[in-house]
Amino acid sequence: MPWRSFLPILDWGRAYDRSQLSGDMTAAVIVTIMLIPQSLAYALLAGLPAETGLYASILPLVAYALFGTSRVLAVGPVAVVSLMTASALAPLGLDTLTDYVAAAAVLALLSGLILLLMGALRLGIVANFLSHPVIAGFITASGLLIAVSQVKHILGVSAQGHSLPELLRSLWQALPAANIPTTLIGITVLGFLLWVRKGMARALVALGVGPGLAGTLVRAGPVLAVIGTTLATWGLALPGAGVAVVGEVPMGFPPLGMPDLDMALITALLGPAVLISIIGYVESVSVAQTLAAKQKQRIEPNQELIALGVSNISSGLSGGYPVTGGFARSVVNFDAGARTPAAGAFTAIGLLIAAMFLTPLLYFLPIATLAATIIVAVLSLVDLSILQRSWSYSKADFAAVLGTIGLTLVAGVEIGVASGVAISLVLFVWKTSRPHVAEVGRVPGSQHFRNIHRHDVITDPRVLTLRIDESLYFANARRMEDVILARVHGDPNLKHVILMFSAVNEVDLSALESLEAINRRLGDMGLTLHLSEVKGPVMDRLLCSHFLEELTGQVFLSQYEAFDRLAEEDTTRTSAAS
Amino acid sequence: MPWRSFLPILDWGRAYDRSQLSGDMTAAVIVTIMLIPQSLAYALLAGLPAETGLYASILPLVAYALFGTSRVLAVGPVAVVSLMTASALAPLGLDTLTDYVAAAAVLALLSGLILLLMGALRLGIVANFLSHPVIAGFITASGLLIAVSQVKHILGVSAQGHSLPELLRSLWQALPAANIPTTLIGITVLGFLLWVRKGMARALVALGVGPGLAGTLVRAGPVLAVIGTTLATWGLALPGAGVAVVGEVPMGFPPLGMPDLDMALITALLGPAVLISIIGYVESVSVAQTLAAKQKQRIEPNQELIALGVSNISSGLSGGYPVTGGFARSVVNFDAGARTPAAGAFTAIGLLIAAMFLTPLLYFLPIATLAATIIVAVLSLVDLSILQRSWSYSKADFAAVLGTIGLTLVAGVEIGVASGVAISLVLFVWKTSRPHVAEVGRVPGSQHFRNIHRHDVITDPRVLTLRIDESLYFANARRMEDVILARVHGDPNLKHVILMFSAVNEVDLSALESLEAINRRLGDMGLTLHLSEVKGPVMDRLLCSHFLEELTGQVFLSQYEAFDRLAEEDTTRTSAAS
Repeated sequence: MPWRSFLPILDWGRAYDRSQLSGDMTAAVIVTIMLIPQSLAYALLAGLPAETGLYASILPLVAYALFGTSRVLAVGPVAVVSLMTASALAPLGLDTLTDYVAAAAVLALLSGLILLLMGALRLGIVANFLSHPVIAGFITASGLLIAVSQVKHILGVSAQGHSLPELLRSLWQALPAANIPTTLIGITVLGFLLWVRKGMARALVALGVGPGLAGTLVRAGPVLAVIGTTLATWGLALPGAGVAVVGEVPMGFPPLGMPDLDMALITALLGPAVLISIIGYVESVSVAQTLAAKQKQRIEPNQELIALGVSNISSGLSGGYPVTGGFARSVVNFDAGARTPAAGAFTAIGLLIAAMFLTPLLYFLPIATLAATIIVAVLSLVDLSILQRSWSYSKADFAAVLGTIGLTLVAGVEIGVASGVAISLVLFVWKTSRPHVAEVGRVPGSQHFRNIHRHDVITDPRVLTLRIDESLYFANARRMEDVILARVHGDPNLKHVILMFSAVNEVDLSALESLEAINRRLGDMGLTLHLSEVKGPVMDRLLCSHFLEELTGQVFLSQYEAFDRLAEEDTTRTSAAS
Repeated sequence: MPWRSFLPILDWGRAYDRSQLSGDMTAAVIVTIMLIPQSLAYALLAGLPAETGLYASILPLVAYALFGTSRVLAVGPVAVVSLMTASALAPLGLDTLTDYVAAAAVLALLSGLILLLMGALRLGIVANFLSHPVIAGFITASGLLIAVSQVKHILGVSAQGHSLPELLRSLWQALPAANIPTTLIGITVLGFLLWVRKGMARALVALGVGPGLAGTLVRAGPVLAVIGTTLATWGLALPGAGVAVVGEVPMGFPPLGMPDLDMALITALLGPAVLISIIGYVESVSVAQTLAAKQKQRIEPNQELIALGVSNISSGLSGGYPVTGGFARSVVNFDAGARTPAAGAFTAIGLLIAAMFLTPLLYFLPIATLAATIIVAVLSLVDLSILQRSWSYSKADFAAVLGTIGLTLVAGVEIGVASGVAISLVLFVWKTSRPHVAEVGRVPGSQHFRNIHRHDVITDPRVLTLRIDESLYFANARRMEDVILARVHGDPNLKHVILMFSAVNEVDLSALESLEAINRRLGDMGLTLHLSEVKGPVMDRLLCSHFLEELTGQVFLSQYEAFDRLAEEDTTRTSAAS
């Protein structure tokens, strides 16, 4: 039924029961409390007013509950996408904050449309071109960039830049102007949150608290920090001492409506929107898949594109900015007992209540507190072990990681991730252009053929078998000609050359011409060329050409048959001649 | 001996004898006569003064004679590179012809340095990325563009543009201004040259002339046309009737010296120089290889980079423009009896004499005659049959041909060839991202395994073997997870899954993580995962990870062994249980 796959709610909604309701409600309360400071903090990171973060957390949650295929994914502002939003909007040089907010909404709208389009075209596969090393490198570098970008709020200074060198230079110059009370708050919160993560969980478990509950309480650390520092700032009248606070946040319903669509703005934001869509999608799907695997459920990647598309469009239409499925919030949602997407809808109600009635309570919340929560949150993204892991596994993967991390830090997120993809593809194509070719012989006691340099195998001086370990296409076709002819050159005993095609998955037109050339050149030398283990799809292709008619030898189903027949045939002929 | 491979002349020079000398001298005389009008015509095509074509044919021939590995390749101005030179210089907006000539020399110098650098880095392999369909499409489209670009000279009008639509529009507008005497000359020469190609060769053979000599006489057609129309133009004083002629050509030695190197000019020409180098190299090497194969000689591709590099540098230092090995001149050289590169050096002497003493004879040579010789020469490049051939063989190759031809005609040579390479690579990567996966069984009476849908094979309901027909890497890793898990889902009899790795030539870090995920997921379902026919290089890689320790099943040397053991094992267990 097409309707069901398009609206997964029809699936789980009809079986909804009281036990699920209770799990979903509990999770919703906990996630709401956790999301209030987090939404504000990420809005700050994106360079947007605090309320934008709340707005971006409400409708998108509802949209995802309707269209998403994950039972527990929580959609909203996340660190990396917030950073990418900031870096997409900065070059526009907008004058007023209102323009900035409007541009962020347009960015969300564009991302949503791109995701919907990709979903309609079933292009979820595009995300696969982001290799694991590129994603890991990008997330690590983004985490570092985000952490450093927040240091200015901890110091209470202004600093600019979208690359690590710019940020560090700017911070160094601003350091003498640091505001002492702000710095004290920031460092205290940082220390508290780090202790909560490391020490408190252990202490709670030692006190007999279950590890699940302890984990949830740890996630409440930022809420405690927010409450504590807000009260202190209010009580001690710290804004008078130069401590920057969130200040007045408008109270009420998210502002519904279409943002102004200016053609120049759309053109400028299209590139960043594509990147945000793909990165956001990859992040979201990998979170969803990790959690689904634990519950033995399945994620439908193309439906996820639709769900995230609708989520982003709803964010753009309600004063928000680009959103995606977040790791921390989804894990909390899952751990706190969420069983269906209804938990997301309940969370949205909680956040709506917060946006409508609770914003005055945020007036005295120090910006430094939010910055400290961001730093602690993103430090968990930084994982330099990928460098060591990729180094020991494959130098090509290592190059992709290093390139992505380096370029993201130095040239910004967009160039970083695009270069990572480009490096991965170039290295892949380069490798396929220089294929491994093994001379093979028969493993004694079997019909199996392996590399003569790795195994003790049976060969025949009159029969040379080369196993070509790559599809044959334009980038390696001429090289194959050279390799084969060089190997054959000056071997007086040779009568037959067999190309073992077990690893050849494709023969394009350029490679076909090279095969024809090899066949002719070997023929001139008095050698016959045979093929073995040609796969169905490749054989279909060769049958469209005249190559098989021109081939001096035969095509054998198996390498064993080829070797058996050619070696035997020659033996017979030799004994008849002698 | 490194010196010998760097200076092939040391090889053939020491064995030089009188019979070779006589062959080389004869070839040199014939090639010199053929090259005089051709050099002038290609200079015209490049938008340069006629003498530039002569200069570009002298020193480069000597340089190639010293460094080249082909015995018969003739280096000099060729049609496609002349067109690319024109299209590289046009956007510079240079004011005077002197600047234009100087920029052409800089372009030759840059191309030479790029070729030398590629030779030093042994990057001849880069040329392989130009697939056969892209080269064929590009040459065909260039031939069409060149032919159309010369029509203005036939009509005696001025017309501009570097794309087919621009050229056609411009010609259409200029048509009413056509000069009748010029058009008459142009059309007469065109008709004569076409008749020479088609009818004369047949007539000569009918008269008892050998086909080799007939071919050579046909190549002299342009020389006859030049002499005839020059005499007619002089005798009838046609310049007074508006017939454009070559006019005064400076007499003397090529102007030796370094062109002015302006940084802005170098920057602007670097991109075109790279393309000219690669296209010129590919064209030259394929001509050289075709002719070498006929004589059972070998071309050393990296040494060819050096030779063409030095040739272009010498062209740039002697008032020339970018050069490469030409097809027509090399064939004439070969047919006329050239046996060593000395023929090239003798040709250079002939052309030097022409440049020093014969240029006044060219004063009355009509431009329309040169244009007609270009048109007839390049029409042999146009080969639309590649469209039909690629269509019937592979749609991806067809797309590359069509894209290259279309974009070259519409957007110019540089965008055309770059897009062709990009299209080929994108299609290749796209194909590898959606690999073919075959479920295989044993071919009765053999140890060979083939696709169950193409062959009658033996299977076991408890053992599923999937042959993955592609290297596993980031672009297809997650797709493989989906394909494998989808196939396994809901098969109650299944106990073992074997992945047959005979066509897996690479497992990158992303694919390793997918394999780990597949192993875990299958384990959760109570299935064991096995691998078979893992190649040496892939096994080496897997041994660098923990995957083989976590693998629930085993790695089997051959698929037969895997199937034999797992099927047997289960039979035993089933019979024991029953």
